[in-house]
Amino acid sequence: MSKPAVILLSGGLDSATSAAIARSQGFELHALSLDYGQRHRGELDAARLVAEQLGVRRHVSLQIDLRAFGASALTADIDVPKSRSLEQMHTGIPITYVPARNTVFLSLALGYAETLSAADIFIGVNAVDYSGYPDCRPEFIAAFERMANLATKASVEGRLKFTIHAPLIAMTKAEIIRRGVQLGVDYGLTRSCYDPGPAGAGCGTCDACALRLAGFAEAGLADPAPYHR
Amino acid sequence: MSKPAVILLSGGLDSATSAAIARSQGFELHALSLDYGQRHRGELDAARLVAEQLGVRRHVSLQIDLRAFGASALTADIDVPKSRSLEQMHTGIPITYVPARNTVFLSLALGYAETLSAADIFIGVNAVDYSGYPDCRPEFIAAFERMANLATKASVEGRLKFTIHAPLIAMTKAEIIRRGVQLGVDYGLTRSCYDPGPAGAGCGTCDACALRLAGFAEAGLADPAPYHR
Repeated sequence: MSKPAVILLSGGLDSATSAAIARSQGFELHALSLDYGQRHRGELDAARLVAEQLGVRRHVSLQIDLRAFGASALTADIDVPKSRSLEQMHTGIPITYVPARNTVFLSLALGYAETLSAADIFIGVNAVDYSGYPDCRPEFIAAFERMANLATKASVEGRLKFTIHAPLIAMTKAEIIRRGVQLGVDYGLTRSCYDPGPAGAGCGTCDACALRLAGFAEAGLADPAPYHR
Repeated sequence: MSKPAVILLSGGLDSATSAAIARSQGFELHALSLDYGQRHRGELDAARLVAEQLGVRRHVSLQIDLRAFGASALTADIDVPKSRSLEQMHTGIPITYVPARNTVFLSLALGYAETLSAADIFIGVNAVDYSGYPDCRPEFIAAFERMANLATKASVEGRLKFTIHAPLIAMTKAEIIRRGVQLGVDYGLTRSCYDPGPAGAGCGTCDACALRLAGFAEAGLADPAPYHR
């Protein structure tokens, strides 16, 4: 019997690839998606389709309204930046940063994992192409893992030793896409845009679209997701 | 101008005292309560009244349905243990443990604190009277604080150095009650019972009621909260 793992699934390219890597390592997938009031909520429909394609055992979608805190372009009424150069993207932490987002996501994944007796949690963070988010860095992931093993009944009683897997953390976007294609990920189902059109089509110019399109170009592949350019 | 602090407020005796200690240290209080599907949801009404009595600047109440995970007597359909001895309570981690609860609460408090530019977070955990919960121990709090300072834009950019305050962690329940009375906490507003009656009255026999009543007895005081014994 394969071991269970919790995979954080946003509906984007990275988390779909991270989940496919977990599956390729023989884990039984239990997906967790978060509806946190993000303006690009179409990604949650994408998460459902990706979960089906990956054959996840169970997909839990939790609602938590982080708009109660505000202060991010992804949750508050602030414009998403468009048409920035890679240099601009790599200067400072972007306005699309959501306070403590990955800390909150991993904490919920930890609770879910403990109830499943799953020792393994997968998150699709990446520190290369988009180094602006503090909670995508290896030192954050390591500190979270250490804290998690002090936090739970299962770890303190010695039944589970949690591992936070971040298999994409040192990969470029092109490397992620090539690996995902090898593993059969259908990137046509995934959505990355921070400011999508009504039918979920990407804007093509926000940071997430620009990095995604540059990654496909570098990998020598066409992006199968829709854009409204 | 006083510095802002986020206080986690459950509506129970401990978090009310923790918040009163924060106020006595000169912090401006921003309260966060979580409706996570707990069976003792009357504590959320208590949290609102306690917040008013303490004069908090703002009280945010977030909904997140941890019942999606199940596996605790506080959120799933499992009986709350009654009439246990102190020895029984101190053997193992109780069934009322909610997977990763304080990790989730502190993560949300961290996001709230960052949006407020608040470096200080108060949580009313206690490792003395009820040592069964792993996420009430000093080593957990220290590991969370370390992780938090690697997780956020404000800490990574050097604008905030987060401190997780757990002022009750080494106090007995009687010491907590005496300190709260000194600071003017109205314990008649607080609710601790895991399995309250319809009007919010305590059962008197669950672990939380038993510890609370023993604490008041040791402090030589009458508990002003209602019981339906």
